[in-house]
Amino acid sequence: MGADTSDRVAVLGAGAVGCYFGGMLARAGHKVTLIGRPVHVEAFRKSGLHFEGLKFDEQVPVEASTEASAVRGARLVLFCVKSTDTEQAAAQIAPHLAADAIVLNLQNGVDNTERIQAKVSQPVIPAVVYAATEMKGPGHLKHHGRGDLVIGSLNGNVSAEVLQNLKARFEKASIPVQVSDNVSSELWAKLVANCAYNALSAITQLPYGRMIDGIGVRDVMRDVVEEALAVAKASGVQMPPDVLARTYKIAQAMPTQHSSTAQDLARGKPSEIDHLNGYVVRRGEALGIATPANRALHALVKLLEAKLPRPPASRPS
Amino acid sequence: MGADTSDRVAVLGAGAVGCYFGGMLARAGHKVTLIGRPVHVEAFRKSGLHFEGLKFDEQVPVEASTEASAVRGARLVLFCVKSTDTEQAAAQIAPHLAADAIVLNLQNGVDNTERIQAKVSQPVIPAVVYAATEMKGPGHLKHHGRGDLVIGSLNGNVSAEVLQNLKARFEKASIPVQVSDNVSSELWAKLVANCAYNALSAITQLPYGRMIDGIGVRDVMRDVVEEALAVAKASGVQMPPDVLARTYKIAQAMPTQHSSTAQDLARGKPSEIDHLNGYVVRRGEALGIATPANRALHALVKLLEAKLPRPPASRPS
Repeated sequence: MGADTSDRVAVLGAGAVGCYFGGMLARAGHKVTLIGRPVHVEAFRKSGLHFEGLKFDEQVPVEASTEASAVRGARLVLFCVKSTDTEQAAAQIAPHLAADAIVLNLQNGVDNTERIQAKVSQPVIPAVVYAATEMKGPGHLKHHGRGDLVIGSLNGNVSAEVLQNLKARFEKASIPVQVSDNVSSELWAKLVANCAYNALSAITQLPYGRMIDGIGVRDVMRDVVEEALAVAKASGVQMPPDVLARTYKIAQAMPTQHSSTAQDLARGKPSEIDHLNGYVVRRGEALGIATPANRALHALVKLLEAKLPRPPASRPS
Repeated sequence: MGADTSDRVAVLGAGAVGCYFGGMLARAGHKVTLIGRPVHVEAFRKSGLHFEGLKFDEQVPVEASTEASAVRGARLVLFCVKSTDTEQAAAQIAPHLAADAIVLNLQNGVDNTERIQAKVSQPVIPAVVYAATEMKGPGHLKHHGRGDLVIGSLNGNVSAEVLQNLKARFEKASIPVQVSDNVSSELWAKLVANCAYNALSAITQLPYGRMIDGIGVRDVMRDVVEEALAVAKASGVQMPPDVLARTYKIAQAMPTQHSSTAQDLARGKPSEIDHLNGYVVRRGEALGIATPANRALHALVKLLEAKLPRPPASRPS
């Protein structure tokens, strides 16, 4: 893989994150195939990706498919399905991946890269995504802010050169990329922030600004963060000292944001909560670390999920 | 106070609990005045208390008033306002209480009796209420099950004779009463059960049966109970060993029940959560005991309360 911008890129899971990064690459001249649900794919085929950016509003021409086999021929695959669908989607693309393909995993959660890697032989690179994006309707992406990545090698499965090439390629498409020596720590930092915000916003259906000003909410967030940090530490992950302060600041930066989990619940869709607070609870149990605050939030989101009528399942979402 | 069933009884706070016990005493021949909100008082005056019991459905003649001063002349006052209104209601009745009146406190929470006693000089006796009751509409009480009390002296402020007389009087009105030597323990046992059920049911708007079967919910309830028991122990309260098992059984006994907190939230009314999980959190902070599960539940109910439009306040409710 070089700096050839005509390389084919496939995006598996054309939700808000996949459409943002796929759309930015397409705008920079890459041939991008968005793989997603029929409702979006029909819209993409009819009039491209409706990309409502901060400074532009365009129809971006893309290829589109509902089939995982459409990864065929892509040298870069952006893996953007929900954490609930990781194994299934990885198994679906495995027979179709080009021998020299690279899979860039843009999912939330800290163990998805290993879960994909267990199903595919091509290298899988974790990316920590910082982007506020939303699907406003069929084929319609709205960008609310940021749009940058932190990438790194997990267990040295790719060289520094590959990472630097990826970085260069994305930055030509106006996607800032930081290459990290300790990407596990970055993944955990994102997980911790997600644990602190996603469930609380989902259960109350409140945006971050109103949520964090609630009585006792900062204390709850501190409990959640401290439990998750204890689990990270016991998992051998070295975390920076200022995670809690950084976590609190997210609400200042994004006061009107509802979490992805809040959006899922509002739409009657299964959330990723088993891979956020639920992951901390499971790892905590395995490691003998108490996680009562994460457990309460996880159980509540599961109860609310179970209460919702579910739309018919479709893959990949 | 003897066994004279013609003694006047005033019920301060004609909600479901007040109407149940006031209604049972009225049916047994006591002169009962229900003090409550105008919507109920109008109905009581027009056609009595509509008492939909398990085995009868009657209009029970009662006196009714919206004024706290209507406690005047009553030798027994059932104190049934919300814990949020304790001080205000106690101060309102204080100048009107008969010198030989007894106040029986039927509120949830473990510190309401002391809070009333600080405002009135007549003896206040705590009662732990076990009753599933509901106001179905203006002046309309529905009884779903149980209806018994545990009473006892707090710091020896009433004699055993007074307690036995009260018991005899209530039992003549088909209200089972247990006199306890350790009423603090009984109050805490009820508090612990309320902490385990009320918030979870309120946040999810689910009945106990569906709620307790949720993923991880029993673990959350165990965390909540263990935190509350630690706070009780540090407060010098001797608790029985089987609180958790008894707590789990409540869902079997009342699978269709929604908590009072759930009913409050559904009706846009302020709940008693500050006196349930919120009390455990505050006492825990004062005693240096961590209460992360109770804190998460308390903060979530407060967020949901703050989100609701409030009806105009009225006292007593």
